[in-house]
Amino acid sequence: MGTHAIAVDVGGTHIRAAVITSEGHVVHVVRDKTHAEEGPRAVVARVIHLTRAAMAECERQQVVGVGVAAPGPVDPDRGLVMYPPNLPGWGEIPLARLLEEALELPVWLGNDANLAALGEHRFGAGRGTAHMIYITISTGVGGGIIVNRRLVTGALGLAAEVGHMPLIPEGPLCSCGHRGHLEALAAGPSIAREARAAVERGWETALATLDHPLSAEDVVAAARAGDRVALELLARAGTHVGRAMALLVHLFNPERFVVGGGVSNAGDLILEPARRAARRHVLPTYRHTFDVVPASLGDNAGVVGAAVLVFEAVGAGGAVTC
Amino acid sequence: MGTHAIAVDVGGTHIRAAVITSEGHVVHVVRDKTHAEEGPRAVVARVIHLTRAAMAECERQQVVGVGVAAPGPVDPDRGLVMYPPNLPGWGEIPLARLLEEALELPVWLGNDANLAALGEHRFGAGRGTAHMIYITISTGVGGGIIVNRRLVTGALGLAAEVGHMPLIPEGPLCSCGHRGHLEALAAGPSIAREARAAVERGWETALATLDHPLSAEDVVAAARAGDRVALELLARAGTHVGRAMALLVHLFNPERFVVGGGVSNAGDLILEPARRAARRHVLPTYRHTFDVVPASLGDNAGVVGAAVLVFEAVGAGGAVTC
Repeated sequence: MGTHAIAVDVGGTHIRAAVITSEGHVVHVVRDKTHAEEGPRAVVARVIHLTRAAMAECERQQVVGVGVAAPGPVDPDRGLVMYPPNLPGWGEIPLARLLEEALELPVWLGNDANLAALGEHRFGAGRGTAHMIYITISTGVGGGIIVNRRLVTGALGLAAEVGHMPLIPEGPLCSCGHRGHLEALAAGPSIAREARAAVERGWETALATLDHPLSAEDVVAAARAGDRVALELLARAGTHVGRAMALLVHLFNPERFVVGGGVSNAGDLILEPARRAARRHVLPTYRHTFDVVPASLGDNAGVVGAAVLVFEAVGAGGAVTC
Repeated sequence: MGTHAIAVDVGGTHIRAAVITSEGHVVHVVRDKTHAEEGPRAVVARVIHLTRAAMAECERQQVVGVGVAAPGPVDPDRGLVMYPPNLPGWGEIPLARLLEEALELPVWLGNDANLAALGEHRFGAGRGTAHMIYITISTGVGGGIIVNRRLVTGALGLAAEVGHMPLIPEGPLCSCGHRGHLEALAAGPSIAREARAAVERGWETALATLDHPLSAEDVVAAARAGDRVALELLARAGTHVGRAMALLVHLFNPERFVVGGGVSNAGDLILEPARRAARRHVLPTYRHTFDVVPASLGDNAGVVGAAVLVFEAVGAGGAVTC
């Protein structure tokens, strides 16, 4: 019998708490809405409540600690959630300490995209590699970078902001206020924006017949049904992702890219254009040095990574077994 | 009394061999021309000869090993020099093994820009940092990346090719055949190319009065004398370097950039525009998280780094002292 960690993923819209074994198995999950609009105090109370609900599914003595995946930027050393764009009103909230006091367990905190990368690396699509880059494409674009089997966190825990790699100097406006970042070219809202523009230009597409505001999901659904404009929109987003990958190949020489997040549900409709663009934009030396695969842990990547953080911090939980 | 390493830097035009202490002091240097046009066999013979000349300056029993800095790409694990653009005719040359057989000493091989980064990190301008990025700007642009005090080499030793970061999709042609790479925007030949273009456009500059093909050195000299066009040319190159730095900040969250190479002799004429552009192009969170300083080891960075490779491989040379 192994040890267990409680892992919590605090997102802008949902909180997810899970009981996870040291082999990365998710044995129980509870969820709740974040209600971020109620502010940090209410959200922290909800996180504590949900963590307790997950703990109730497990003998207390089985639990070696709590791992928290929080929206970036975070300060992992001091356990602070800094100023995440999707948690309004949060600023240097000592989430790790607040949870430790409430739960009387050691708590480790990390950036959600970094922890998803760690989860995919140890127990998902990156297993067996030493050098891996995870890219998540959904409302935004985030990522995590594994070098020599370790997360690259940087001097202040702020590394691996792959969504804010500039690709086109005067490109579309990004959520951060700069232009031409990967996030502004490939995230869900940018695919939706390009779809609306295509409809406005009068391109022949089933998207023009929908009577609600277009979303990236609509584009993926239309593309799956063979709509050529929708396919082209996904290919363009994938090409931008591939150009970003080419750049990352020159810097990190990874063996593998693992792509997750809601938009990646489009599968090869976005990954194949990404592969093609990545191979086209690297120096010949690199052309066959990496592969591009879909993530395999789905929405659990963050909690699995948060559990890895706990187990590796306590030395694989050797002391406490159940 | 410390131990010594012999370190050799094999460049496209010069070979440099040095005796270096475990404290990073360069106690003796010998140099020769590479004569790369004579092919790998002749160059390897010259490297062996020069290494022996350096060893003659030192008691044999002081020497713990030989470190070699070679132009990239190299395969450090197998000790191979692959297909370096500035050593024509070289392909998978087993330089480490050839030197080991000739010198009867253990030999370690690394990419020259990576080793220069290691040298600057351990004994130069990067000392004391845990996360540092070295950029060298001369005929080409290269670099080395330190994360958690270790070089990022990637899966095959091919990481940190900062010269081939694409910055402008349809920008000027790079030596590698792609467009808009940092090297094509900021290396010496690109500064010279822009200077010629400025003269051809009839811009008012002392560069127009020179009666030889313009070089980056001419631009630096004119800028130092206050020539406004030359200053503008260096500022543009520096701005491209700064944009590349901004991208690297988002990925690595480094504490420091160390800039070396011949073009960096322009000092703040190129570093100050780079600093400004880097701060302008990063997200606000990062604005005060890094500094940009000149390299401090000059042409010795590569040999010092190659010696570090030796000392750290043999466990700081504890066994053999002099």
